[in-house]
Amino acid sequence: MRLEVDYGDLKKNFDSKVVRKLSDMSDKYKDSSGVKGDPIIYEVYIKDFGTFEAALTVLNSGTVNGEFFMTKGHRHKKPRKEIYILTRGKGKLLIQEKNHSKSVEMKKDKMYFIPPRAGHRAVNTGRGVMEFMSFYAKDAGHDYNFKFTKRFFRK
Amino acid sequence: MRLEVDYGDLKKNFDSKVVRKLSDMSDKYKDSSGVKGDPIIYEVYIKDFGTFEAALTVLNSGTVNGEFFMTKGHRHKKPRKEIYILTRGKGKLLIQEKNHSKSVEMKKDKMYFIPPRAGHRAVNTGRGVMEFMSFYAKDAGHDYNFKFTKRFFRK
Repeated sequence: MRLEVDYGDLKKNFDSKVVRKLSDMSDKYKDSSGVKGDPIIYEVYIKDFGTFEAALTVLNSGTVNGEFFMTKGHRHKKPRKEIYILTRGKGKLLIQEKNHSKSVEMKKDKMYFIPPRAGHRAVNTGRGVMEFMSFYAKDAGHDYNFKFTKRFFRK
Repeated sequence: MRLEVDYGDLKKNFDSKVVRKLSDMSDKYKDSSGVKGDPIIYEVYIKDFGTFEAALTVLNSGTVNGEFFMTKGHRHKKPRKEIYILTRGKGKLLIQEKNHSKSVEMKKDKMYFIPPRAGHRAVNTGRGVMEFMSFYAKDAGHDYNFKFTKRFFRK
């Protein structure tokens, strides 16, 4: 019998993967007109742990008419908290309940607990790739129609 | 309405806490006789995320008649994987299926996926505190009677 400690490189060892190009979320940007090609905004590598999932999000650096690359963002359908941990790069975590929003500059070696009812989105404000881990209940559900009021532009 | 991003310092913000003194696990050591006092071997700060839990384990440095401080170790009652992430210090992760065991020196910035049926234990082989995060399904269950065959002594 072989007994392997499976080193968790989610980029190589995942159960499912999501790729988001600009065309998958052009409505999320203030103005997505005139962008050349269809850049990959981010990729998510997901591993299934039974009742929860661990996800590595690789969020590229760039802007859409000056607005920083970001995740689609969502709110959970069930009241489920989530954990975010920044592992590479620089960026912000935006959370919002109804029309009240707050953003924080993410720091490595910190965990961020997303409140159960809050919309949440990551924004890459750096010059390089931003990577973060998230952990969430499998039954959380995703509402991608949640409207975020705050936007982040390169100055 | 206040909207807080809850910075995840599990030592201050936890739902439950476990303290393991030597007297709680003296049968796990080869020889626990003659140890003065009843040292705290480790503490676990646990936060509930609905279908899963996030735990920070703070494993002190020391030995029991030369055998390094370690966690009790367990196997899940249900076939549930678990994630370990070292956040401070130095130590080993021991996993075992039946009588076949393997240990690895844990590295920071790596994730370790524990196989569903494997017993697992952390061992602090360093001179300072060892801390690690773990993420596991709430319904995993814990079998603390699992017998580990491998032991780690200060040379």
